[in-house]
Amino acid sequence: MPNIVVDADTIFKELKSHSISEFFRKNSQMLGYSGKVRSLTTVVHEYSSNSLDACEEAGILPEITVQVKEIGEGKYSVLNRDNGPGIPQKIIGRVLATVLSGTKFHRYMQQRGQQGIGGSGCTMFSLITTGKPIHIRSGTGKSAYECDLSIDIKSNKPIVTNMAEIDNSFKGLEIYGEFGDVKYEMSDHGVYEYLRRTALSNPHANIKLIDPEGKEHNFVRSVLEMPVRAKPTRPHPLGVTTNDLLEFAHNSESKKIASFLTDTFTRMSANKVTELRDMVNTLDFDKDPHQLTWDEAEKLVKAFKATKWIAPDLDTLSAIGEEQIKATIKNILNPQFMAVIERKPKVFRGGIPFVVEAGIAYGGMAGKEASEGGQGGVVVRFANKVPLLFDGSVCAISLAVNGVDWKRYGIKEFEKEPVSVLVNVSSVYVPYSGVGKQAISQEPEIIEEIKLAVMDCARSLQRYMSGERNKNIQASKYNTIMRYVSQLSTNLSEITGTKREDIEVTLKDLVGRRYKKLLEAEASANEAAAAEEAGEEEEEEEPPAAEEKEEED
Amino acid sequence: MPNIVVDADTIFKELKSHSISEFFRKNSQMLGYSGKVRSLTTVVHEYSSNSLDACEEAGILPEITVQVKEIGEGKYSVLNRDNGPGIPQKIIGRVLATVLSGTKFHRYMQQRGQQGIGGSGCTMFSLITTGKPIHIRSGTGKSAYECDLSIDIKSNKPIVTNMAEIDNSFKGLEIYGEFGDVKYEMSDHGVYEYLRRTALSNPHANIKLIDPEGKEHNFVRSVLEMPVRAKPTRPHPLGVTTNDLLEFAHNSESKKIASFLTDTFTRMSANKVTELRDMVNTLDFDKDPHQLTWDEAEKLVKAFKATKWIAPDLDTLSAIGEEQIKATIKNILNPQFMAVIERKPKVFRGGIPFVVEAGIAYGGMAGKEASEGGQGGVVVRFANKVPLLFDGSVCAISLAVNGVDWKRYGIKEFEKEPVSVLVNVSSVYVPYSGVGKQAISQEPEIIEEIKLAVMDCARSLQRYMSGERNKNIQASKYNTIMRYVSQLSTNLSEITGTKREDIEVTLKDLVGRRYKKLLEAEASANEAAAAEEAGEEEEEEEPPAAEEKEEED
Repeated sequence: MPNIVVDADTIFKELKSHSISEFFRKNSQMLGYSGKVRSLTTVVHEYSSNSLDACEEAGILPEITVQVKEIGEGKYSVLNRDNGPGIPQKIIGRVLATVLSGTKFHRYMQQRGQQGIGGSGCTMFSLITTGKPIHIRSGTGKSAYECDLSIDIKSNKPIVTNMAEIDNSFKGLEIYGEFGDVKYEMSDHGVYEYLRRTALSNPHANIKLIDPEGKEHNFVRSVLEMPVRAKPTRPHPLGVTTNDLLEFAHNSESKKIASFLTDTFTRMSANKVTELRDMVNTLDFDKDPHQLTWDEAEKLVKAFKATKWIAPDLDTLSAIGEEQIKATIKNILNPQFMAVIERKPKVFRGGIPFVVEAGIAYGGMAGKEASEGGQGGVVVRFANKVPLLFDGSVCAISLAVNGVDWKRYGIKEFEKEPVSVLVNVSSVYVPYSGVGKQAISQEPEIIEEIKLAVMDCARSLQRYMSGERNKNIQASKYNTIMRYVSQLSTNLSEITGTKREDIEVTLKDLVGRRYKKLLEAEASANEAAAAEEAGEEEEEEEPPAAEEKEEED
Repeated sequence: MPNIVVDADTIFKELKSHSISEFFRKNSQMLGYSGKVRSLTTVVHEYSSNSLDACEEAGILPEITVQVKEIGEGKYSVLNRDNGPGIPQKIIGRVLATVLSGTKFHRYMQQRGQQGIGGSGCTMFSLITTGKPIHIRSGTGKSAYECDLSIDIKSNKPIVTNMAEIDNSFKGLEIYGEFGDVKYEMSDHGVYEYLRRTALSNPHANIKLIDPEGKEHNFVRSVLEMPVRAKPTRPHPLGVTTNDLLEFAHNSESKKIASFLTDTFTRMSANKVTELRDMVNTLDFDKDPHQLTWDEAEKLVKAFKATKWIAPDLDTLSAIGEEQIKATIKNILNPQFMAVIERKPKVFRGGIPFVVEAGIAYGGMAGKEASEGGQGGVVVRFANKVPLLFDGSVCAISLAVNGVDWKRYGIKEFEKEPVSVLVNVSSVYVPYSGVGKQAISQEPEIIEEIKLAVMDCARSLQRYMSGERNKNIQASKYNTIMRYVSQLSTNLSEITGTKREDIEVTLKDLVGRRYKKLLEAEASANEAAAAEEAGEEEEEEEPPAAEEKEEED
């Protein structure tokens, strides 16, 4: 077959644009719709994390019910009901049937959702696998309505039908959808495990799953208080690129660059602006921020980096909390041993705040079934309290945990011990590696923090394990000696004619007292050694990314 | 801090839509822009694979020059020049500065690009890291022009400036861009390795890299013929979902469902339509395809699956080719042993055609530097002839290769042997796991095919390895006997008085002949054993997805 030379006009006559919804229709695996089990979990993940976000924002203790029913070959319905604030009637289409539309994308705030893709992705997935719209019931407290919702994929526009008022006692949001090419399965990657882990990281939520067999699984809240709410914040000067700064400036409502800076950034005081003025003296700080050029912005960002700043505000982040994690680990895993740590917030990429929490549970129901039988180590990953069940092999959390030298902490083979390592990374911006948000991108600062957190817990584990080991060694020594005492007593009794029992009691008493002293001495020696060993491993704390000094803000 | 109950209107007052370019600006790691080295490789990957696609489409033997220069701290310029057809002046902005716009998305044809994201992604990455536009020079043969190109991120619209005619002797396309937050490095993930592998899978291309030190690396073509061009094709009836069928129907220009079917699908003859009519007798095949409903489409798709079809057309796929792969492996790796196979095309998801090629090279420059020194096994992945350097751990190719029991093929530890396993998957639609197109999604049919291809090559390797092993064993036996012969000759000479040399010659001749027979017997026994072993491993060929019987098309 000869090749014919074709010119550019011919080649490009087919040039077309397509919508983001068309793109994801064709590449739905990129949203997490790959594999039947994963696809169903993705639907539940999107709906339940939206419910948790909405309740958190509205200040409501979440009650979430998820019902999964088999409705045909490879077809399941999912119903997700919450007691949240609902969605206003006139924007329902833009919220749940327009890809890249939502409240969260432009915010600088820690939330589960951040893209405006998840909910609309489910609407699309229902459409392309069953041709059905999703059904909504929403009550805001003042009024309630129901409707069907679909999406015009070519234009990425919502299609709202059968809109009707319903009894206004209905409060919250209920979404019912039918999905094809899915499967319910009790596995590491299934809906049950997803919700179990969601309960683990959201101890303030009541979550009920009604599975396809009609069985109810209740994950009951273990704390009665709302988590401290993440607050919207402003970006920190160390967290922006030149392009970010230009974007902010060109969209600013401030009249001058000076006020633009104080309005836009946290930690940007009038004094700081004066400092910056001195450093970037070629820039007119009174000019319109819309006139800021790339070169000027670049100089400003350089000046930001050369300035000392108070670290980002800490209460913009909402971690699960040490006590809450302990309560749920006890509740769900009931381990022999556990250690939990919440690290101090840090920053990555210069100024994006994040905080890492980690926990280690050993024994009890910790770990997962190992391939060769028995329990094996498992890494339980969360980002902004949302479980990550897929793509572990490229995730910063897995990399960090696998990077720990577990032998040093008394875990001979991580894969063969009943150990669960939990890590939750919270941030105003979690750098996911893909649109499906199942793995955290490998940012060096994040990996480092996770490692430090896990190693901290691992040191407690090490002390526990060496205590257990010593107990075993000592018990076995004691048993050996006691066997010897019995034999010795018999022999002495034969030689001396003294009653065997008397000799044995005396000898045992003697050995017991002597042995106790020995035990105490050994134990304190061991502790000293463990402390020393732990001290060696303690990596030097890096200095805080921004110096914390007193300054008006 | 008490939580305040907030209502839905307050929560949703911030509802906003954003453009696809805004989304990728914020999440550029999803396009492959994560890490300095990877980001630079991503730029070169996008430009050079566009060049190869354009040349292939125009029927031109590609001459590609990539020049990378360091222009500042963490800043590099990339120039990519090809001898392709160029891009018509009036659409340049839509081709290289509009995300989700291109010629390839709607086609049903094997190409490197398929999304309309790559080239515009580079334009965005240049803008957000240096604030600069990219510079284009394009000549179509009739006329030539240059211009600067940038993108309005908020609206996803191109910004074309400084447009000017240039000397019309310029033929091809040259893109010059400046990028920040990048790094040139000689590593497994760097630009050099990327282009080296591109040369490996595109033996018809001349590729020149001028590195930041000004050093020229020339990857010279090893074949002078254009690869057989992939042809645009129509979808196979077994490869469509209900939703696909509806989309096709609602966008069809046919007047009746019957003609819509024959116009839309490959292998859809008039006879087949008659068969379908009988199976779906509730559907009026004379009605307007725009009126087709989900239920009717679902019934049609079910009928498709119950019908016997000729398999998809094979020459819609363009593999690298067995001889070409051998030539380049020899050229670049110069191994002691190699085996290459091109499998027959198969289908996944019911009807999307794909073809797998695999090669194994052993010794020479095969493998990569192992962490403990020496050479270790390496998996060299390609999709539609484009090297995949990242995200190997989630890729179907890596999974398949790691799933092979290498011990059975004489490779004791894959990680410690000088072995390269090359796999190329070609398809009209490669199901990438992410927008950055660095890993193939784990489709079971694709994994299975890769495994069969690799195991086929591995069996040849096994024969080679066991031959090598036998040679070693035989050589060592022979040497032992010969030492014995020398000693024996001396002893016999002393006893008999015959000249030592005479005895030795006779004995050696005797042993040599006897030994040769022994060797031949052993070798044939070994071969029989190997053949038997290989036979056991040969998994039963699955029947072709669609029965191939004579039928008009």
